[in-house]
Amino acid sequence: MTRMETDAEAQMATAIRVLAMDAVEAAKSGHPGAPMGMADVAAVLFNRFMRIDPADDKWPDRDRFVMSAGHGSMLVYAINHMLGYDDMPVEQLRAFRQLGSRTAGHPEYGHARGIETTTGPLGQGITTAVGMALAERMMNARFGDDLVDHWTYVICGDGCLMEGVSQEAIDFAGHQHLGRMVVLWDDNRITIDGATDLSTGTDQQARFAASGWHVQAVDGHDREAVARAIQAARTDDRPSMIACRTVIGYGAPNKQGSHDVHGAPLGKDEIAAARQHLGWTHDPFELPQAILDSWRAVSARGATARSAWQERLTRSPLKPRFSAMLAAPDASALRRAITEHAERIAVERPSVATRKASEMALEVVNATLPNTIGGSADLTGSNNTRTKGMAAITAADRGGRYVHYGIREHGMAAIMNGIALHGGFIPYGGTFLAFSDYSRPAIRLGALMGVPVVHVMTHDSIGLGEDGPTHQPVEHVAALRAIPNLTVFRPADAIETAEAWEIALTAPATPSVLCLSRQNLPTVRDLARVNMTRQGAYVLRETQGPRDVTLIATGSEVELALGAADLLVARGVAAAVVSAPSFELFAARPQIDREEVLGAAPRIGIEALIRQGWDGLFLRPGDGFIGMTGFGASAPAPALYRHFGLTAEAAADLAQQLITGGK
Amino acid sequence: MTRMETDAEAQMATAIRVLAMDAVEAAKSGHPGAPMGMADVAAVLFNRFMRIDPADDKWPDRDRFVMSAGHGSMLVYAINHMLGYDDMPVEQLRAFRQLGSRTAGHPEYGHARGIETTTGPLGQGITTAVGMALAERMMNARFGDDLVDHWTYVICGDGCLMEGVSQEAIDFAGHQHLGRMVVLWDDNRITIDGATDLSTGTDQQARFAASGWHVQAVDGHDREAVARAIQAARTDDRPSMIACRTVIGYGAPNKQGSHDVHGAPLGKDEIAAARQHLGWTHDPFELPQAILDSWRAVSARGATARSAWQERLTRSPLKPRFSAMLAAPDASALRRAITEHAERIAVERPSVATRKASEMALEVVNATLPNTIGGSADLTGSNNTRTKGMAAITAADRGGRYVHYGIREHGMAAIMNGIALHGGFIPYGGTFLAFSDYSRPAIRLGALMGVPVVHVMTHDSIGLGEDGPTHQPVEHVAALRAIPNLTVFRPADAIETAEAWEIALTAPATPSVLCLSRQNLPTVRDLARVNMTRQGAYVLRETQGPRDVTLIATGSEVELALGAADLLVARGVAAAVVSAPSFELFAARPQIDREEVLGAAPRIGIEALIRQGWDGLFLRPGDGFIGMTGFGASAPAPALYRHFGLTAEAAADLAQQLITGGK
Repeated sequence: MTRMETDAEAQMATAIRVLAMDAVEAAKSGHPGAPMGMADVAAVLFNRFMRIDPADDKWPDRDRFVMSAGHGSMLVYAINHMLGYDDMPVEQLRAFRQLGSRTAGHPEYGHARGIETTTGPLGQGITTAVGMALAERMMNARFGDDLVDHWTYVICGDGCLMEGVSQEAIDFAGHQHLGRMVVLWDDNRITIDGATDLSTGTDQQARFAASGWHVQAVDGHDREAVARAIQAARTDDRPSMIACRTVIGYGAPNKQGSHDVHGAPLGKDEIAAARQHLGWTHDPFELPQAILDSWRAVSARGATARSAWQERLTRSPLKPRFSAMLAAPDASALRRAITEHAERIAVERPSVATRKASEMALEVVNATLPNTIGGSADLTGSNNTRTKGMAAITAADRGGRYVHYGIREHGMAAIMNGIALHGGFIPYGGTFLAFSDYSRPAIRLGALMGVPVVHVMTHDSIGLGEDGPTHQPVEHVAALRAIPNLTVFRPADAIETAEAWEIALTAPATPSVLCLSRQNLPTVRDLARVNMTRQGAYVLRETQGPRDVTLIATGSEVELALGAADLLVARGVAAAVVSAPSFELFAARPQIDREEVLGAAPRIGIEALIRQGWDGLFLRPGDGFIGMTGFGASAPAPALYRHFGLTAEAAADLAQQLITGGK
Repeated sequence: MTRMETDAEAQMATAIRVLAMDAVEAAKSGHPGAPMGMADVAAVLFNRFMRIDPADDKWPDRDRFVMSAGHGSMLVYAINHMLGYDDMPVEQLRAFRQLGSRTAGHPEYGHARGIETTTGPLGQGITTAVGMALAERMMNARFGDDLVDHWTYVICGDGCLMEGVSQEAIDFAGHQHLGRMVVLWDDNRITIDGATDLSTGTDQQARFAASGWHVQAVDGHDREAVARAIQAARTDDRPSMIACRTVIGYGAPNKQGSHDVHGAPLGKDEIAAARQHLGWTHDPFELPQAILDSWRAVSARGATARSAWQERLTRSPLKPRFSAMLAAPDASALRRAITEHAERIAVERPSVATRKASEMALEVVNATLPNTIGGSADLTGSNNTRTKGMAAITAADRGGRYVHYGIREHGMAAIMNGIALHGGFIPYGGTFLAFSDYSRPAIRLGALMGVPVVHVMTHDSIGLGEDGPTHQPVEHVAALRAIPNLTVFRPADAIETAEAWEIALTAPATPSVLCLSRQNLPTVRDLARVNMTRQGAYVLRETQGPRDVTLIATGSEVELALGAADLLVARGVAAAVVSAPSFELFAARPQIDREEVLGAAPRIGIEALIRQGWDGLFLRPGDGFIGMTGFGASAPAPALYRHFGLTAEAAADLAQQLITGGK
């Protein structure tokens, strides 16, 4: 046996390899290639650098580790098992990819301790990690090295670097000079289809360097070289990328280096050969105490660091503020402030776009909550996301509260997930609603993880006007309503907008999307003491006697519904108006409550979007709908509303038709 | 006056500037900054290089020009007006951004001649152009320089290069060595929020070079330098990027160089100042004949080239094959081949995954249609997109029919749009359905343009199994059904899969998504002579007497519905089964036909996805649904189906409950 094989750290790596191949074999599914290829790098990283304490996986100053190549999840589970996370006993490894286990096919945030973010959809991990690294520097700017002094390490693969969102991450991190981020690229030159040169020829080192990164290349199986590179990365003040040249499936003597080991079990024979090759004599899932001791020493080092940190925190005059930043937002203070603001609006009755109303609400929010972080994907003036005195967060000064995310909607959403996951801040960020398509993969991942970020999506219909159908969402609200655990708001006026903000910011584990108008809208609510948006949908205007018809609308079309009701009243028709700012919140209410709001009379839905999502929840067979059936067009908004038949007259006429038809 | 200002080419540029600022002013909305900044570059490009003939905007060998920075649409409209496109008279410029005009806010494919692709959502243009440049080389490989010898020019801005998808485009184009692509980057260092250095620090030249591009930098207002650079780009065999350092809004003396000119009219005073500064004495939309003559000379040069090309084509022995490639696919041949294939399946009754069934259908399709181009975003073996003998298209040999798109779902979809827009090929490409979120912006743009590409989306439910919720689509089908002018198929067996392919490939102006199972499914259809998928939904199994219940299912759940029907029959309940492979096609049928298929009995929808989209079209209040209400989980597929209550037993029990409840 060579020194390398007997060396304790080498054994730590070998244990990752064996656990990964055995767990994949047991599951009859999974990806042994990446964990086996990156085992040496991971062993060095954890053994010599990572500062974590499995006894407190929420320790704020822990180092973050993100397995961006999420299909290599067994690397995470193997390590966390050996580190001694108490929710990762060997039974979990045996139950890899089985129903109810914490060891899901891809690492799932919240399923087990020590998983910092859900990964799997490629490119998400590295981009989310940028948000973590940014948040670390933002906390550091506020609390100093004594309390905030940690690192964000990422293992990513070729897939992560081929996904476009990685460019958004790399450019942003380089520009923000996030020197505490270290990316370990698993440069194995293999993808599922075969060699990487089937589809890419990019010099990744040059690419990272072009965005201001510190770049190194090492043999990923030379642990001393890896250690030197990580040390150099930590010394350099730029974000660092280390190209770790590895052999995929390293240790499987006949299959390593080929795409065969990427995503399938090695098989009994190859596992036997690998055991022999690695000098591993133990049964599946059996670990010698010496190896466990090596891993537990990492945890012990972390525990010592955490104790020291805890003492520093206890002694620190900043402790109350630090704790407040990390705590849930003060819901009662926010409620008071928002209610006061909403009541003022109910008196002043401004006619403003809801994107402007959002800014007005944010003035209150940002004055009340110290840790909101605003931003926009280069549409600050259009999204109205920056309130008074919000300084930009720059490489030179991370004390600000506003992020210029650049023209990177997808990156913005993933970075916001990372900021929220890191803790300490509540991020919100703006773009046009039509571009929610760009950020959708990260919005979905946030919903899956239950990360409470707020997506501010303005220009929410054909009301956008002249920019035309490329920029006019018609199906995006329906598509967002389809995502589980995501609350979509389309508020009708400044009061509902403020209410939506209150709900969004106090939802503990649900991201939100605020769909906001470009065009001015009147204040439609009279009372603002009770947050009616929380009901999802509510009667905005009731009839005197029994209803002849109920007009149900959202956002900018509530004004139109009220206009239609006026016309109908003039024609002797009793029309009630329901405002429905959030379908999800309404759907969550008991059926009996919903029926009471909606009534038995014929119903008409009005929304300048497609109908999908209205039936079942609001509309029954025979009920009517005024909205869009296809893409929009380029013209001033009033012309478009007329052109597409979105008028009070059309709604009133349809109502009369329904009533007559029903009689 | 300096020579530059009197020079004919300078006047061509000045005319772009003045038309752009005047049209934006007239519309009271739009983006003067980019057209004014890039006017010199565009004048050089068209005056000295572009080979197009406005009399035949579909000439196959024309150069392609893509304004990736689509907000600068007035540059396109001004040029096309001056070139003499007969659908772009001055009235269209006066009607910029008005209802019914061809001069939409962003250039819309199909609205006016000479617009090669719809742009506006940033990054789409440059990526779509990569598809065009690839298609040019693919046609060239088949028909030689005599018939195929054109260039793809792109103007892109900072926004395009910040969007992640641009990296997918750059990497792919560099790897494919697309030397006939020239990107002219409007390096004006301004974005909407302000200076580019608010959000980016990437050295774009180094970035392109890292992906194997030929890179140059010039003063974008030095026309001779621009011309030399384009000439050098054409000489080099790599794709070329020319960084054109420009002043945004060049010509507006007080506002140029600032983000104020990006997206708002200049205003009366500044326009007057610009007229003075540019030495322009003409009224708005008035053009001196000399300038028009200069532009018309470009068109005349193109007309001559086109005549010569037409003669070459007429003389060419390749003419029939060339014309066939560019014509619509032979629908009757395809129908014959697919029907024969389907009838064979009806006899053999294989139990195969629909992704495998898709491959079986593609063997027939690819043998019948000479110009289908397959591909996958690095999931070839999983998507089953490569049929026998399909050689890879590589930089060294473009004669193949299969594209390794790499791990770039978004880029793949946009590149496929470009291949289809170029003409000559019918592209289809595969990924996992969950990653349709990544490609969504390009899928949408294809639907808006009416480009008939086929998105092959496999692993279409929790049937994916162990990879878990990140990879399990639950809301994606609903979200895709929401996109206008997109046909979504979820076939139940190998017959429906073949039928879906036939419909998708013969739809003249509608892209399609095929949602295909990972897991094996039995053949459920008995007859295959008539394409029943074309009905959208149809009765797969009718009851003997009156129906007690109708079970409606799609894809993998049709098997489950048949199982439930068996259970119900055994319990004495008359249960019909409707297969619903395409909601869009069903929705397009007359109400009376739909009622006949669905019947009056209680209905149960069964789909291992969320319910959104089922109500209204299939389900009424009181009807039932068996499906998903949230994200999936990681486990073997059969365990997941049981866990989430997606079983024949559950469906049968719900049916009995409904019938009893209704009686």
